[in-house]
Amino acid sequence: MMHTAAALRFHSARCESTAMGAMPWWGWGEEGVAFSHADKPELRDFVLRRIGVDVDRSAVRRAAFTDLELPEPSLPVDLRAALEGTVGVEHVSVDALDRLVHARGKSLRDLMRHRRGDVGRLPDAVVRPGSEEEVAAVLRVALTADAVVIPFGGGTNISGSLEAPHDEPRPVLSVDVGRLERLVEIDEASRLARVQAGVLGPRLEEQLNARGWTAGHFPDSFTHSSLGGWIATRSSGMQSDRYGDVADLTRAMRMVTPAGVLATRPVPSTSTGPSVREMVLGSEGRLGIITEATIHVHRLPARRTILGYLLPDWPRALAAMRAIAESEADPSVTRVSDANETEFSFATRRRQTILDRVQSRALRWYLGRREIDPAAMCLAFVGYEGSPQHVSLQRRLVGRIVSAHGGLCVGSGPGELYDQKKFDTPYIRDWLLDAGAPADVSETSAPWGSLPELYDEVVAAAQGAFARLHVAGHVMCHLSHSYHSGACLYFTFAFRPEGEDGGLAEYATVKAAIQQAFVDAGGTLSHHHAVGIEHARWLEQDISAPGVVLLRALFDGIDPGRNLNPGKIA
Amino acid sequence: MMHTAAALRFHSARCESTAMGAMPWWGWGEEGVAFSHADKPELRDFVLRRIGVDVDRSAVRRAAFTDLELPEPSLPVDLRAALEGTVGVEHVSVDALDRLVHARGKSLRDLMRHRRGDVGRLPDAVVRPGSEEEVAAVLRVALTADAVVIPFGGGTNISGSLEAPHDEPRPVLSVDVGRLERLVEIDEASRLARVQAGVLGPRLEEQLNARGWTAGHFPDSFTHSSLGGWIATRSSGMQSDRYGDVADLTRAMRMVTPAGVLATRPVPSTSTGPSVREMVLGSEGRLGIITEATIHVHRLPARRTILGYLLPDWPRALAAMRAIAESEADPSVTRVSDANETEFSFATRRRQTILDRVQSRALRWYLGRREIDPAAMCLAFVGYEGSPQHVSLQRRLVGRIVSAHGGLCVGSGPGELYDQKKFDTPYIRDWLLDAGAPADVSETSAPWGSLPELYDEVVAAAQGAFARLHVAGHVMCHLSHSYHSGACLYFTFAFRPEGEDGGLAEYATVKAAIQQAFVDAGGTLSHHHAVGIEHARWLEQDISAPGVVLLRALFDGIDPGRNLNPGKIA
Repeated sequence: MMHTAAALRFHSARCESTAMGAMPWWGWGEEGVAFSHADKPELRDFVLRRIGVDVDRSAVRRAAFTDLELPEPSLPVDLRAALEGTVGVEHVSVDALDRLVHARGKSLRDLMRHRRGDVGRLPDAVVRPGSEEEVAAVLRVALTADAVVIPFGGGTNISGSLEAPHDEPRPVLSVDVGRLERLVEIDEASRLARVQAGVLGPRLEEQLNARGWTAGHFPDSFTHSSLGGWIATRSSGMQSDRYGDVADLTRAMRMVTPAGVLATRPVPSTSTGPSVREMVLGSEGRLGIITEATIHVHRLPARRTILGYLLPDWPRALAAMRAIAESEADPSVTRVSDANETEFSFATRRRQTILDRVQSRALRWYLGRREIDPAAMCLAFVGYEGSPQHVSLQRRLVGRIVSAHGGLCVGSGPGELYDQKKFDTPYIRDWLLDAGAPADVSETSAPWGSLPELYDEVVAAAQGAFARLHVAGHVMCHLSHSYHSGACLYFTFAFRPEGEDGGLAEYATVKAAIQQAFVDAGGTLSHHHAVGIEHARWLEQDISAPGVVLLRALFDGIDPGRNLNPGKIA
Repeated sequence: MMHTAAALRFHSARCESTAMGAMPWWGWGEEGVAFSHADKPELRDFVLRRIGVDVDRSAVRRAAFTDLELPEPSLPVDLRAALEGTVGVEHVSVDALDRLVHARGKSLRDLMRHRRGDVGRLPDAVVRPGSEEEVAAVLRVALTADAVVIPFGGGTNISGSLEAPHDEPRPVLSVDVGRLERLVEIDEASRLARVQAGVLGPRLEEQLNARGWTAGHFPDSFTHSSLGGWIATRSSGMQSDRYGDVADLTRAMRMVTPAGVLATRPVPSTSTGPSVREMVLGSEGRLGIITEATIHVHRLPARRTILGYLLPDWPRALAAMRAIAESEADPSVTRVSDANETEFSFATRRRQTILDRVQSRALRWYLGRREIDPAAMCLAFVGYEGSPQHVSLQRRLVGRIVSAHGGLCVGSGPGELYDQKKFDTPYIRDWLLDAGAPADVSETSAPWGSLPELYDEVVAAAQGAFARLHVAGHVMCHLSHSYHSGACLYFTFAFRPEGEDGGLAEYATVKAAIQQAFVDAGGTLSHHHAVGIEHARWLEQDISAPGVVLLRALFDGIDPGRNLNPGKIA
């Protein structure tokens, strides 16, 4: 059973966990919280059918902490003393578990390698400054000692943004900004909040909610990711259709750089040359350490609802979402799954009551009347927020569009379920990994006109890779964010590995096939998961060679010694 | 009388004007089109009262073209031959008038200096490539010869972005991209248009409108400014509340750089590191020459209306605009003038009919009943676009907010008038300059909470400067764009010069006082007029010293020889 109290209990756990790393070194979330299929009668069969893994029989042992060979830290005495003098002895850690937890993010590759005992180049120390001044002092000390500095927020990155180069000879410091978690002030007239960058999602919303506000930013990683991390990787949230991507809602930021503290102004729009604000966004630690941001906040909405809809097939599902984006409706969430993911969603249902079964039968009858084929149908969620009148008008506008595309509304029940389970996905990945099945995600965005073909090509690329590798694999997709001119398509894939390495090499093949299909079909290498090292190989194809020249000019200009998170992006 | 057909006649004039420069070298628009007060009985008195200039008696002679001392071009024979070989002999001009028109933009300082015969460092040639390949070839030739390249779109910049350094020893080429004015294609499914960057506003809308689309971008300079120029200076338009600033509506661009052709992808959102798209935006020719952009387009709305409103005073006018931004209303235009600008608007009314006078008397009676003081009242325009139902709902929502702030709707008459006259302002400036009165604009943006104080401080700064200089001066303001967390305040000022130089030095004092007040009060140096050389001195105060380091890293990285529009921005 999934412990849904995890997010709520997270705050109290934070104090201990920051001492030893926020999450277990081999997986997601809190230790002791896990996903299970015990109460989901259709799930085992679904997984068996799709990738040939029997979750009741298959179990892969992961390395125990005591099995690991963890190198001693290589931290010069002078550097350690200088760091301790700067942030205090208790905030410079060379503890092995702490260093392990800070060595990587939470990509599938990170977890698979850790679970096999391949821990890579650990940082030599974890440093936890308690103020912007301390961050600046740490950076000065690090640069003086020619050390490498890797900023660490929640540690949830899945593109390899947190990993030191395996052959890095210089001392490596993970600078964990988790102590910077304070809401500094709310400018209520301007609907802006100044917040320290180390704050994690739940703590941010807790502080804002207490005063009647919300930031409205809810990425899948919400429970464990930080504001600074969202900015450094250009995060999107589940309600970004309404609240904007983090690039939209972040008005200003403060960042400690080798040239001093960069501070942009929280103005709504400006023409001060190439946007420095948009250089900090997505910078992944290459330009400095983000310490604070000024972000949009909104009054908590009077009404909030997410409705479920069924569309007859994927082409009409995409067309309906495009029509909603073109309409005068203004929903907070637009999400629709393809048939494969719809089937998966139904397979994760809990044990049904008699009433559920009666409702299911009624729905099937209705689908038959509307000539909707259950094997092709696509489950959508559309969210609405605002005054009761506003919500009701938006629902009417969307309802008409869905009907015109042969779909129907299935009420608020599925939406409420989605809302409850929206942060569970990474736990499902651990559950599959425990059973030996690698599962991962890749997402892109492209213009509306390119999406149908891009979808077909990505699915074909994944299936082609599975076939070439002779592995049983599954790929599914949902549209997760809509914009004026296009949308984000979010793919999830899993397979039963055949290789000796637990599937690492096979995973790389499938992942690369999908990424290549993205850029070949006119998409971007990632809509909101950043570049890191995992996506760097497609960067030039995406932004062109002169684009890469501009990025390198930026990095080299502010950090000529390449001390700041070297090797990431470009 | 203002020739309102100017914009329409512009297209046919373009062919001749590109040969000799798009606009007169001493002013705005088309030669022979002018603003006059002959049919506006209150205007002469208003100007006399406010700045002591009698437009009927005062007239300042401007230099004639034949008076000017124009230096011979300094264009090496090899370079000229190489350029002619690249774009054709007819597209390399060393004509004196052509070089003069390309020497500067249309800032007040540009016009005042030109009118006095101070023409500055003219470009040595005007080169007009006809394709992206030709742009690339011109840049290669220029770099080989170590020439300076200044891209030229419509030539309307008012921040000094087009002027060569006065002591530039290298050959200077103005690369006029006016031949690149084609709508390449519309992706109707994605609501995206690929357009060549040299297209001017009217020609862009003409090509889009013919197929039922609009870009919705209408800056004050619309009739004479180009898409590439909008991008290079981060332009905003009158309907940007709805359509977005040019930074929002530009999805992708192509730019010829020393490192090759930069091409970003027209994806709706992406996480490919620091945004290269947002580096091209605002780059003012420092990174390369923009040749093409992919921009949002919208179906022409079924209904479009602009309503006038009167608010009782400036504090309540600002509060009403803030409340509209916070509400669920979605207007296309939000604009409100302070009392001074409201008085100016009424002073530009044409000779009234008896009916007008009866209506005015009825309005005055009504204002009296509502206890609105005509000397304090603020005229607002709010625009609505979309389906009839949508427009009518937005009107109701806005109407309620205006009422709650003590204001009233004065119908669509003033709005229609505003809509007709919206591109006239630069002609009024020429009319004032002809009478010897310098008039200019400065605009900023800031959070809502800072705007009341910022306004007071800017007005005090301008009036303080007038007093110190012992000149009669006038300053007025309108809010021109609203956002979630703030707005743009747009100031206009004029004065009667006392100095020997026609007011150039006095102008510099007033302008500097206003700009300094912007940054001191938390605003930005410019919301949408770019940096150029005029605003460069406030850049570090605005984006902080490390921000300037980042910009310089970018410029030096791609253009180590500083051949691309040197001296601009940073």
